[in-house]
Amino acid sequence: MSILIERDMAQETNQTQVLCSNGCGFYGNPRNNGMCSVCYKDSLQRQNNSGRSSDPEVSCSKLARNVQESTTEMLLTAGSSSLEDGTSRGKRKLDETSETTEAVSTSELDVSDQTSDVPEQSKPKKNRCFSCRKKVGLTVEGKSDFSYHNLPYGVFSTPDNPRRRIGVAIGDQILDLSVIKDLFNGPALGPHQDVFEQPTLNAFMALGYDAWREARKCLQMLLAANESTLRDDVSLRSRAFVHQSSAVMHIPAEIGDYTDFYSSKDHATNVGIMFRGKENALMPNWLRLPVGYHGRASSVVVSGTPIRRPQGQMRPDAAQPPIFGPSKQLDIELEMAFFVGKGNNLGEPIPVEKAHEHIFGMVLMNDWSARDIQAWEYVPLGPFLGKNFGTTISPWVVPMEALMPFVEPNPVQDPVPLPYLCHDDPYMFNINLFVTVKGEEMKEAATICKSNFKYMYWSMKQQLAHHTVNGCNVRAGDLLASGTISGPDPESFGSMLELSWRGSKTIDLGNGETRTFLKDGDEVTLSGYCEGSGYRVGFGLCEGKILPALQQ
Amino acid sequence: MSILIERDMAQETNQTQVLCSNGCGFYGNPRNNGMCSVCYKDSLQRQNNSGRSSDPEVSCSKLARNVQESTTEMLLTAGSSSLEDGTSRGKRKLDETSETTEAVSTSELDVSDQTSDVPEQSKPKKNRCFSCRKKVGLTVEGKSDFSYHNLPYGVFSTPDNPRRRIGVAIGDQILDLSVIKDLFNGPALGPHQDVFEQPTLNAFMALGYDAWREARKCLQMLLAANESTLRDDVSLRSRAFVHQSSAVMHIPAEIGDYTDFYSSKDHATNVGIMFRGKENALMPNWLRLPVGYHGRASSVVVSGTPIRRPQGQMRPDAAQPPIFGPSKQLDIELEMAFFVGKGNNLGEPIPVEKAHEHIFGMVLMNDWSARDIQAWEYVPLGPFLGKNFGTTISPWVVPMEALMPFVEPNPVQDPVPLPYLCHDDPYMFNINLFVTVKGEEMKEAATICKSNFKYMYWSMKQQLAHHTVNGCNVRAGDLLASGTISGPDPESFGSMLELSWRGSKTIDLGNGETRTFLKDGDEVTLSGYCEGSGYRVGFGLCEGKILPALQQ
Repeated sequence: MSILIERDMAQETNQTQVLCSNGCGFYGNPRNNGMCSVCYKDSLQRQNNSGRSSDPEVSCSKLARNVQESTTEMLLTAGSSSLEDGTSRGKRKLDETSETTEAVSTSELDVSDQTSDVPEQSKPKKNRCFSCRKKVGLTVEGKSDFSYHNLPYGVFSTPDNPRRRIGVAIGDQILDLSVIKDLFNGPALGPHQDVFEQPTLNAFMALGYDAWREARKCLQMLLAANESTLRDDVSLRSRAFVHQSSAVMHIPAEIGDYTDFYSSKDHATNVGIMFRGKENALMPNWLRLPVGYHGRASSVVVSGTPIRRPQGQMRPDAAQPPIFGPSKQLDIELEMAFFVGKGNNLGEPIPVEKAHEHIFGMVLMNDWSARDIQAWEYVPLGPFLGKNFGTTISPWVVPMEALMPFVEPNPVQDPVPLPYLCHDDPYMFNINLFVTVKGEEMKEAATICKSNFKYMYWSMKQQLAHHTVNGCNVRAGDLLASGTISGPDPESFGSMLELSWRGSKTIDLGNGETRTFLKDGDEVTLSGYCEGSGYRVGFGLCEGKILPALQQ
Repeated sequence: MSILIERDMAQETNQTQVLCSNGCGFYGNPRNNGMCSVCYKDSLQRQNNSGRSSDPEVSCSKLARNVQESTTEMLLTAGSSSLEDGTSRGKRKLDETSETTEAVSTSELDVSDQTSDVPEQSKPKKNRCFSCRKKVGLTVEGKSDFSYHNLPYGVFSTPDNPRRRIGVAIGDQILDLSVIKDLFNGPALGPHQDVFEQPTLNAFMALGYDAWREARKCLQMLLAANESTLRDDVSLRSRAFVHQSSAVMHIPAEIGDYTDFYSSKDHATNVGIMFRGKENALMPNWLRLPVGYHGRASSVVVSGTPIRRPQGQMRPDAAQPPIFGPSKQLDIELEMAFFVGKGNNLGEPIPVEKAHEHIFGMVLMNDWSARDIQAWEYVPLGPFLGKNFGTTISPWVVPMEALMPFVEPNPVQDPVPLPYLCHDDPYMFNINLFVTVKGEEMKEAATICKSNFKYMYWSMKQQLAHHTVNGCNVRAGDLLASGTISGPDPESFGSMLELSWRGSKTIDLGNGETRTFLKDGDEVTLSGYCEGSGYRVGFGLCEGKILPALQQ
């Protein structure tokens, strides 16, 4: 199915919808105060951003100045070697269909609304983006993770160019920002285009909130159907787009510090019941502050990195001395994490009302845990070797702007937290989350958990405000994770510890396969997405396979 | 007092000593198996290094090739502008005395043994370094922290050159390694001289054990009395030496991860008695493994950085809700820490018998702690905001080679640890440690603690082997700290928590000043040194002053 933006979706499916209450001409959504997702997002941004400088606008004329070849010239050279050399099916298809009026499906740049010999002014005024008034030209498969609404950032390399560089995922393509960095010529990014030539996102993250918004607007314009900069420059397009299947993804940022919170009430309650009984399930501090601890930054790895079963010291029998060996209780933890954008100086807290301006974007995270090692070591200073042998994150960082349409009201917190933790603006997000496990003998992966990020008790704004209230400094690229995300239903428990209730029951994987904890060879996959009206903002995959422990 | 090396010391003070049992011609020390400190150090290195490639030798001829001007030429140009422009008293004095036969005292380069018009071969064969057969030419004040035996590495800048660069402390001077990097032309460093042009020590640390030893040998040769490379090149010397008083010191390495252990048995016992009673003082795991946790890397700061009293959530009255405010129990922790040199790959443990090859050197550390914040937050995931508002380290990293003469037998560990934690080679160190506090109203700082690093129960080798046994990767520049170092006597307790026994008694600072915890304006200074025979290997200072909390 060809998806342009919500309006097209509604037209194609004949859904009964009303126009956006903001008067932009697009269809609205009752969940978004009757606004379309773009207007709703903008209204939330304005709300979050009150008192700040006005919305940074990237001048389209500035973009136009970068176009070196006219549309006509491009079409004349469509058969040139630069095109024929292209290896991407998508790129060729794009040019083949450039004079048709049918939308191009499945993850390709759509120029369906363009006929190069008709002046733009005379065409029907539809499919225009409310924000930038440009036509929306990117089409992706209906349920693709990486829609025009998403535009996540990642770091990739290719076999023919091993240099790590920054890209944005669009459908099944990657737009290489190092190639088009000189198109980012707004006030916040113009003087800092070199951030897109770095091997990590840290420098871009450090530029701050206005720069991120400007980058996103610029990208949305570049990808609009009637924006010629990319569309008409065959050579540029050939250099700028890489098929995801031919790219290797890397860790998106150099993580200075990684912090893990413990902010799902259901998870903390479940673990508390198991270890301390129902009456004392939550520790006295849990409802008063977002409990967290420092994790290990060095062993945060990108999706796909195999995880070796750790060896270590444990004491399975409290009446016997501890033993050494491979962990027998290797577990997953379904988490999400956010990257800090601009940091703070040591001694200068980030107030909760400004916290969102320091939150760049989110990834999925699997906080692999060796329960037997952890249980023996963690008193009194917390988890250490039970956790730091590996933590996997998904490679694509979804910007917070892409998630704002999916914001949900904050949970009622009782007792009311101290003032430094209170914020009124909603900052919970409806993100569907899944965990699958596939054993070596299994043909298909089995879903063992369906959860949602909205089950969090403490918001990311509260976590960041708490983390810095004592003056602790955070830096661009720091990773702050949610803790295991469990919901109220057993199918939403985000760890095998909870799913098997501390090993007391088995987790059914189908066809006779069961687990209490992970076996060697198991492949674990986390996935997640926000469901829009006919489109998705997805996170891609967070995967890891268990290798057997080293021989002793 | 002028100190060349131990042999000179013995001659000057007429001590009764016997020659080194290794036959090198220097005086020996009964504590070092009758060997001189250099031979003893070498024997320990050989012991640690068994099975490795032979000792890397830096060819003196290679050094000689770098000398551009002869001694005679240097003397002829001694009054040239490059000398007159020199601002260092030390440099001028050096040249003034270059034809005398008296040793130059107080931290200056000694060329007393040199007469430039006498062929070297005809001079008496004394004061030769056993390792390199070069005369030892550097003299420093008897109790200076930074003797020829020390050669600690640091990162500094100067007002006229704000570029951060790597230096070695000698007496009250800094030898700028970025200026003399091309003199490091041995097999391990020759291809990597650029490590000395970096703004941190990470790249040098990452080169590994052989490179560190080669660098040290090269430095010792360059500083020898009859080595002309530095001595005779007025211009080079003028560029290469900076007076410490005119330098600003910076954090010596970019710390990827910082881990804090809890390895002093006296400290753990004291805290245990306070919080759990005498019968349950040590947790069951404490004698079985070096308990540790991940600290915050971003807030590790260099000596001299002020520390702002943190605010945070605490619950002083368990019958009342928690409150928010400035910590009322701000404390110090006397610690030492080591920098990881070469790291390991994820999934590949560092075995305990190889651990010393990954330990670059040591610093002093003050792990500032807000006890009231810590007490409320730390269950069940460990210390977080009670610690991460600041951790101070001394700027000079003392190489492990400089500490080997002060090695002590390992403590008897009962129960015997699991095999992965067992090593026979001694790796405890006799390092005298001191803490002083000076309140704003006090004329002199008061010493509140005299401790020693030898009071550790778990060795640094055990800590590193444990940290990586599960496959956790460490990286060059990672910082691993000891935990509070308390000895058996009350005066050796390394925290105010212990010194005031949880605030139940006052700590006397003299003249009516007392403390239980720190007041605003208090200046805390950690210092430490190893006492050699007439010389010291010192750590300099680790200082911080408490600023008042931010206004609420």
